[in-house]
Amino acid sequence: MRLFLLPPAFRPQEPLVLTGKDYNYIVRVLRLKEGQEITGRDTEGKTWALKIENISQKSCTLISGENPGAGATTDTLPSCRPEKTIVLYQCIPKGRKTDDIIRMATEAGVTRIVLVHSRNCVSDFSGSEQGKFSRFESVVREAVQQSGSVVPTAVEGVTDIKDVPAHFRNLCKDLGTEGKGLFFHQCPLGEKQQDLVGLLSGFDGAVGILIGSEGGLTETETQDLIASDFAPVLLKTNILRCETAAIYAIGAVQTLLETSCQ
Amino acid sequence: MRLFLLPPAFRPQEPLVLTGKDYNYIVRVLRLKEGQEITGRDTEGKTWALKIENISQKSCTLISGENPGAGATTDTLPSCRPEKTIVLYQCIPKGRKTDDIIRMATEAGVTRIVLVHSRNCVSDFSGSEQGKFSRFESVVREAVQQSGSVVPTAVEGVTDIKDVPAHFRNLCKDLGTEGKGLFFHQCPLGEKQQDLVGLLSGFDGAVGILIGSEGGLTETETQDLIASDFAPVLLKTNILRCETAAIYAIGAVQTLLETSCQ
Repeated sequence: MRLFLLPPAFRPQEPLVLTGKDYNYIVRVLRLKEGQEITGRDTEGKTWALKIENISQKSCTLISGENPGAGATTDTLPSCRPEKTIVLYQCIPKGRKTDDIIRMATEAGVTRIVLVHSRNCVSDFSGSEQGKFSRFESVVREAVQQSGSVVPTAVEGVTDIKDVPAHFRNLCKDLGTEGKGLFFHQCPLGEKQQDLVGLLSGFDGAVGILIGSEGGLTETETQDLIASDFAPVLLKTNILRCETAAIYAIGAVQTLLETSCQ
Repeated sequence: MRLFLLPPAFRPQEPLVLTGKDYNYIVRVLRLKEGQEITGRDTEGKTWALKIENISQKSCTLISGENPGAGATTDTLPSCRPEKTIVLYQCIPKGRKTDDIIRMATEAGVTRIVLVHSRNCVSDFSGSEQGKFSRFESVVREAVQQSGSVVPTAVEGVTDIKDVPAHFRNLCKDLGTEGKGLFFHQCPLGEKQQDLVGLLSGFDGAVGILIGSEGGLTETETQDLIASDFAPVLLKTNILRCETAAIYAIGAVQTLLETSCQ
């Protein structure tokens, strides 16, 4: 399933001429030929069946029907979609790992990715913040198109780890839903620590997942999170790199969450 | 937690001189200094507390005590470790993605990674097989050292998808355990499809996870797998790239498996 995110200039039944990155995606990545169809999503979230009318050296032209393509939607979009809200609070890792984490989390349909500064982060975004965020946006765009995700994942930054619990509380308030904040920690912390299956059994709200950066979380950070109702989760696995930990945790949380609400 | 895999030449109390990649790992990756300690694991699986005696331009010398370091083991190895057998049957993806999948699966403590040839695989390993496997071994080695995994992950290849169910049955027979084979498929396949929580509830054996390559599985492959007792699992998420799907599925399966046997 491939989805094409339509530019704001899209108008039904009017030829849509694509150049640059969009042209590249249609012609080089998806390798679509003249006459083939693709599902597009407009900026309002409606899906459209689009036909490739013409492909030239540097541009291609797409045309849609009069009405949003209900048929195309139910046929071509995956029938199993994540329905629950997951917010990933990711302490900023080194180098390009943030891109990988954003790509994987977007594919899985995480609603929001909030970049977090914690004590052991060696990277910060001061100075080049704007450039980084526009790169993150294109990573999200690519991942949405590739995965056909129906979730408009947003990347937000940078929040200090102290402010994460309040950030998550406010978000859940806005959504009008119950929230459960989790962080993953591999050394037992005493009686307070629960396993994920127990924590999410029957839970039907939004889940916030905090993942540490390379150095993990400090003891103070851990204590502050617990005091603010973020639950430490015991995962019976090895110490994972932060980029592995994010999608591992999302896989576990989403599977439990989407099952418990059936 | 960092673990150093000791070369076969290691002898207790004798100075161990490291050069090349091992030197690089100790000095450049872990940035250990003279006098610092690290936990090593010898080829028999025993762990040793090792002290960095000397670091020069191109080599470093480590020395251990007389006996395996019981203290060091329980203190520094993660206290939560995966205990259940997971076998990843990975249809070969394009390019270097296999490395990423092997790295993440090894970190999570997957017991065995079997590379699989399926209809939609565009890569095969004919010709350069030997070179690829020695690269995979160094990926595993790095991941074991970095994650401190207690599982000696093995990479094996290449099995045809038709032979996967028999391969898994034989493996379970050798291990003397019950086995459950799973594959992930996102279009509903009718009544036969179950969710992961139901499938693994109370299950205490080994799990085989089959992940498709870029093009997914064909209908014939799907039908053959079902006929051979591999269960199609419905994941309520978007279509994931194969490298995301592997660790996502491992996260979900391992979390359920390690919980259900407590």
